[in-house]
Parts: sequence; structure tokens; C-alpha cells
Amino acid sequence: MYEKCNVFPSSTAINSTSSKRWHFHRSVLENLVILAPGLLGGSVARAAHVRGLARRVTVWARRPEVRLKLREQPWVQQVAETAEDAVRDASLVVLAAPVDKIIELARQIAPHLPVGALVTDVGSVKGELCRACHAALDPHARFIGAHPMAGSEKTGWENATDSLFEKRVCFVTPLPNADEQAVATVVGFWHDLGADVTTVSPDQHDEITAHISHLPQAVATSLATFLATKSPQWRNLSGNGLRDTTRIAASDASMWIEIFQQNRDEVLRALSQFQDELHGFQSALANRDWLEVRARLERGKAWRDGFRP
Amino acid sequence: MYEKCNVFPSSTAINSTSSKRWHFHRSVLENLVILAPGLLGGSVARAAHVRGLARRVTVWARRPEVRLKLREQPWVQQVAETAEDAVRDASLVVLAAPVDKIIELARQIAPHLPVGALVTDVGSVKGELCRACHAALDPHARFIGAHPMAGSEKTGWENATDSLFEKRVCFVTPLPNADEQAVATVVGFWHDLGADVTTVSPDQHDEITAHISHLPQAVATSLATFLATKSPQWRNLSGNGLRDTTRIAASDASMWIEIFQQNRDEVLRALSQFQDELHGFQSALANRDWLEVRARLERGKAWRDGFRP
Repeated sequence: MYEKCNVFPSSTAINSTSSKRWHFHRSVLENLVILAPGLLGGSVARAAHVRGLARRVTVWARRPEVRLKLREQPWVQQVAETAEDAVRDASLVVLAAPVDKIIELARQIAPHLPVGALVTDVGSVKGELCRACHAALDPHARFIGAHPMAGSEKTGWENATDSLFEKRVCFVTPLPNADEQAVATVVGFWHDLGADVTTVSPDQHDEITAHISHLPQAVATSLATFLATKSPQWRNLSGNGLRDTTRIAASDASMWIEIFQQNRDEVLRALSQFQDELHGFQSALANRDWLEVRARLERGKAWRDGFRP
Repeated sequence: MYEKCNVFPSSTAINSTSSKRWHFHRSVLENLVILAPGLLGGSVARAAHVRGLARRVTVWARRPEVRLKLREQPWVQQVAETAEDAVRDASLVVLAAPVDKIIELARQIAPHLPVGALVTDVGSVKGELCRACHAALDPHARFIGAHPMAGSEKTGWENATDSLFEKRVCFVTPLPNADEQAVATVVGFWHDLGADVTTVSPDQHDEITAHISHLPQAVATSLATFLATKSPQWRNLSGNGLRDTTRIAASDASMWIEIFQQNRDEVLRALSQFQDELHGFQSALANRDWLEVRARLERGKAWRDGFRP
């Protein structure tokens, strides 16, 4: 399988004992192709360049003026004029387009991929996306979805850095029955970019991120839109608490509308349960049930204190 | 009035033009007294020491073992054995006790204060507190409440720093008809500690902080207690969004129970309105009203982008 897929013509073991953990070899890709690089795709390219993970980094961007600028970047070896051209000789393709454009891009490149190529992505929602990309690419190439949790309120490849993924969580989300070697290769790639990789099914991913990412966004946005109805002077009277609690409200609206569209059902479930929780807090306060209010403050503190540093 | 109250035996103008803005003179207090120093009171002492705002810093702590340790601190000149002893010779007293103990402390020291002394505090809730402290201290001394927005999930005088108030908002909350000179002196004191001072009435303060501080705490706590009901592994899969959104959930429960007790009505009002806002988001999502979801994301972003840096 490994030979047949021909993704890694060469491979360097980090140390002699790592031969048992073969998927943590620092493997060198012949041609890493990044389609539609933004903050995440650009950072994949920069990190792969700095870490020596690919002999060539090939990119394609939809807009010609971006392609012109990408030509000048030291971390790019080739800029293709079309997505189809970009992938012809690909070892691993990273679909870095906005989440609602990824499936379309997979369909577009499918017939042009070399046999055995691997395709991954950076989309924030995975269930339908992974099933559609698998269907679009099969049997040309194998799709193993990924979602690095390294977004930011900053966007665009201009803000990309080679350290964006360091110690950040990256979900890799194989469908059931995915090729194990392909999964291991994509896990190894994100690991080599510096990320902490966790493998879960696409649907588990969407349930988890609805809670730990999409719900907090809805809450931060609603806190911001609520306070926007009050005196504009209040905003500048806040301490760091409100600043941190609402930071992600400044995130890109276009990115988030896609996430909410694609993960609507899971987010609605999480939102509804969160509202019950908030209502419980309100009732305790209304009833002057100070034991209950204290218990909630203490439970919340215990949970937050348990975050990894 | 200025002569009579004898708060400032000496005063140093920062520069020659500042004589018109007399309340921004860097005035040197003869004896700054801090009762029950924790993070905030300790930081007042340290900042006043470093900035040369007082000839003497006198402190009193309830627990004898803390008094022993305070004796060893270079930013303390006197440690009193009782609160009454501490204030006998005070120019300015800072009541730094937990918010539910401040009124009691004001009553305790009232008969022992020199005529014309000023008293301020660091309590997070101001309406009832300011009225009760004024009543307790009048006519011995003048109370001008304050609330520096410089709390932290860290507590205790051991975590105090001399830069805690730098560029942080500090509310000064005079009652109607407060002595203008006394207000200006307390404003000048917090200004000299490095804070950005805003003067509002005690009730305005409580309405504002219910929205920009107490509501975010209730929301962060509820997000934390909700997620605590889910798999404990999810916590460590989060990006920086959840980390920031829930940071204040790690705050001290004892401090917050007092704030919620004292500002219950305003917090309930804010909570109820916030729930309507969150419900609006949920409805837009449930109805697939993407224009409305986008409008909310954009309104939230515009509000958050308007924060001072």
C-alpha cells in the first residue's frame, strides 16, 4: 500500500527508536499543493517550508493578483494558473478554501489528480464535507479531512506564519473504513507542522466543535450585539474580563456564516442546552439561592482550572 | 475647605502648567492607610510606594499571621494591630476588604478617624455600599467610593503588583452633593496610581458593571458549567476562543457570590435582556435566516472592533 500510493518517495526517521512509531517519521513530500491559501493554507505552506516537509510547495489562488503576489514569496516554489494544473503532480493536496467552496474544489480537481494522491483540508465543519469530498475524489485520490483549531480574528495569507499550528489542536477526521496508511500519513503531516493531532469521526468532530467553538462564538457575538444596544461609552470602561469574553466576536463574519450554515443542527442543540444552563443560573439568582449560585461558580472554576496550561 | 481638611500637608506640582488642573497635582499623602489588603489593596500600597504618593503606608490585616508577613514588606512603613489604631492618624483610608465586609469596617473605624480624613474603597458594587459608608462615616470623615477594574483570577496581597492599575479603568462614585474637593482628591489619587478614572454615580456604576462585568461573569460561568457536563476530554481540544471566552470562569467564587448578592437586581435585568438577544440568534439560526445571522455577526464584530486597543 505504502509503495503503491507513492506519496513519499523519501522518508527520514527522526531517531532510531521511532521506527516503531512509523507514522511519526518526518516524511518529505515530493510536491505539497495548497489550493486557495488564506491564513491557514498560507501557514501550512510557510510551516512546511521552514520545517523542510516538502521538496516543492505549489499553490494556486483564485484571484490572479494574489497569484502574482504569491510568486514573490520565498516559501512558494510554484504558482499554478489553474487548480487543475496545480494538482497534476501532487503528493498531498490541502484544500484551504472557505468551507462552502471545498466540495466544489474537490470535484473540480478530481480527474486531474495522480493515482494515489492524498487530499486533506482545513474546513471547520466535517460531516457532510468529508462524505462529499470522499465521493467526489474516489477512486482518483483519497480524502482524509482535517481541521486545525488555529483560526484567528486575523485572516488572509498575508497574516500566515510558520508557527501557527505549534501546540494547537488539529482534528483529523477519517470516515469509517478509511485507508489506515492514508490516515497515518495525514496525521503525520499535521503532527510535523507542529500540531497536537486528535483523530475523531467527522460527526463526532461536528458535535465537539459545536460545543467548544461554535457555541462560544454565538455567545460572544450575542454578548457583543447586546452591549452594542447600550451606551457606546460603556465598552471602554470594561476590564480584561469583557475584552477576553468577547474577543472572538471580532472574527470574520463570512467565515462564521458558513460554519453556522454547515453545522446548524449541532449548534442549535448546544445553544438550546446552554440556554437551559444560563436559565438555571438566573433562577438561582432570582431565588436568592446563594448555595446554588456558589456551587455554579465553583463548578465553573473547577472546570476552567482544569485547562491545560 | 482644602486647608481645613488637612489631607495634604504638602503637594508637588508635576509641572508649571499643571497649576490650572490642580487635581492632577501629584500630591503626597502624609499617611495612606490600607485596611485588609488583598490583590487590590496590596497593589494600592505597592503602587503608592513606588510612585512616592505617601510619606507613610500603614496597613492592617485581620489575621495576625498576615500582619507578621506584611511587616517584612518594603512597601509598608507601619503595620497596625487593630483597624482603629491604623486610622487614628490617616490622611486617606482605603477599605480593601471583601465587598460584604466594607460597610462593617467603615462603622468600626468611624469614631477613630481624624476630622477631615478621606475614605475610599475598592468594592465592585457601589449603590448601597456608598450610601451606607457615607452614613457610617459622616460627620467624622468623607467617603468617596471607588472601583478599580483591575481584578484578576489571581487573588491575595501576595499577587499584588505596583503596575496593577496602569491604564485600567477606575470608577470613582461620589454620591450627589459630595464635597467637590474630596471627590477631586480621590480622583487624583487613583489617577496618580496610573488608572484611567471615570466619575459616575453609584447607581450608574452598578448598572454599567452589571452589563460589562457581572453579566460576562455569569455567561462565562454558565458556559463552563455547561461544558463540564460533557466529556472532560473536550476541554483540551479547544482553541484560544474557548480559552478566552471562559477565562473569567476561573475567578474566585467567594468574591463573585458577594457581587451577585449585592448587585442582584441589575444583574437579573441584564441577564434577562441578554437571554432575549441569544434567543434572537437561535431563532435566526433555526429559521435559516442567514441574512439575520450575518447581520448579527457583523454587528458584533463592529462593536468589538471598536474597543480601545
